Amino acid sequence: MRRGRTMRVLVDRLRGGTWARSPDEVVVEEPLEIRLDGHVVATTMRTPGHDYELAVGFCAGDGLLGGALVTGVRYCGLGPAAEFEYNVVTVETGGKAPVPTPRLGNVSAACGICGSTAITDMAVRLGPLAGTRQFSVAAVHAAVVAMPVAQEMFGRTGGLHAAATFDACGRIDIVREDIGRHNAVDKVIGRRLLDGRRDGADVALFVSGRASFEMVQKAWAAGIGTLVAVSAPSSLAIESARAAAITLAGFARGDELNVYCGSLAGVSQRAAEARRRVAASS
Amino acid sequence: MRRGRTMRVLVDRLRGGTWARSPDEVVVEEPLEIRLDGHVVATTMRTPGHDYELAVGFCAGDGLLGGALVTGVRYCGLGPAAEFEYNVVTVETGGKAPVPTPRLGNVSAACGICGSTAITDMAVRLGPLAGTRQFSVAAVHAAVVAMPVAQEMFGRTGGLHAAATFDACGRIDIVREDIGRHNAVDKVIGRRLLDGRRDGADVALFVSGRASFEMVQKAWAAGIGTLVAVSAPSSLAIESARAAAITLAGFARGDELNVYCGSLAGVSQRAAEARRRVAASS
Repeated sequence: MRRGRTMRVLVDRLRGGTWARSPDEVVVEEPLEIRLDGHVVATTMRTPGHDYELAVGFCAGDGLLGGALVTGVRYCGLGPAAEFEYNVVTVETGGKAPVPTPRLGNVSAACGICGSTAITDMAVRLGPLAGTRQFSVAAVHAAVVAMPVAQEMFGRTGGLHAAATFDACGRIDIVREDIGRHNAVDKVIGRRLLDGRRDGADVALFVSGRASFEMVQKAWAAGIGTLVAVSAPSSLAIESARAAAITLAGFARGDELNVYCGSLAGVSQRAAEARRRVAASS
Repeated sequence: MRRGRTMRVLVDRLRGGTWARSPDEVVVEEPLEIRLDGHVVATTMRTPGHDYELAVGFCAGDGLLGGALVTGVRYCGLGPAAEFEYNVVTVETGGKAPVPTPRLGNVSAACGICGSTAITDMAVRLGPLAGTRQFSVAAVHAAVVAMPVAQEMFGRTGGLHAAATFDACGRIDIVREDIGRHNAVDKVIGRRLLDGRRDGADVALFVSGRASFEMVQKAWAAGIGTLVAVSAPSSLAIESARAAAITLAGFARGDELNVYCGSLAGVSQRAAEARRRVAASS
């Protein structure tokens, strides 16, 4: 089945101290494996659609075509599992492009042939989180309000992402900034590990941008049960947070935020409880 | 020499129809090669600083430690070239972590041991661009104003990046949106190549986020002489745009923008010309 580029989800919105539940539309995120004349050259997390263009543009931008003309682009079926057919694309030059050299990359080890496989791999390896602290709305708001002051480099350059851990009182623990949002999270979690703190059950993770699959993956691997993003989550982020038993909040700005799965304590739990009941019965 | 995390540059700011030249601070972007017990596992573009944390967090988040404890982290010197010493980090577990399997990734082929090497590699391969069209301020503004309407998915989700090419009249040619900003650019350039348009001299490239090295790299490889970003450029983006003879504009919002190298036609060229003279004499 070919996936759409957006999908609808139900979201709890907190506005003016009141929860309201309503549908929302999120971007779909799925891996795409790119091959050149049959050789795998990359796997990238992307929004489905225009996959041929993505595959050709990637090969060209990376200098892999070596001046060869593209003679064809096609999806590679993988047998009966039709769902996966649109996650592998081969760019063909009739063998005119140089054989690509395998290169080491920063693509997640969990990148599978589709997002669900990636989540399943992680669920088998890590299991859902248990015993993590439930965070309050007040703690999240306190952290969100404190972040701009903590984003020291951003104030000067306007040019980078931030990640942070904060505690149940909303006190910011570690803040790191980097031009790469993944890097900022890696630095925060790396600092914790270097400090010998291997259990993330008592902290939440803040990211200054969007919540993508890889953000959830990193929280999951670190045992952190709450992820708060300033911008939108992707579909796969929500699916993986659900599998991980991670509370995922997005559009956390000022005293507003959206919760996409799990729940926060305080204000009113009714909407979150209703959502859980519906989810359990679906 | 250890690089700082930010650096000062001179920028031409267009405000209220007037150019003014003033210093600005930009984020430094440099590659970091991460090794685990001596095996290369990734090269990532990052902001220098907290490199040990980044390396450990990457290995942990990617599941590479396999439960092993980190016994040491260090920079790997590469002989007399001290400048490069801080771009390679080894995470050590005394051989307790599983030997990492080489994986194919989406890291640029141009990723060298430092940003300058990456630029030199590209300069040797591609040469500076010549014969590209100079764009006018009016064309850039027209494209910037038109983009929100063209970002169809963003309006619905708030969750993704956009890239576009536009012509000398500011007319948007191709727009693509993706959860990954690199992917959006790859899709635009891939579409052009699929259409048989291998020469980008007559178009400019718009990106909805920041201008990083890889954005310039992709414009360069496509022969596009003008890059316009909504947010900040990195240091390496400016350096590579300079080597490529690409005009680089940032913070392009409404009728405002900054030019970091090259120049746009119209309004007043005095500041841009003065900047070029200073650059030529330094």
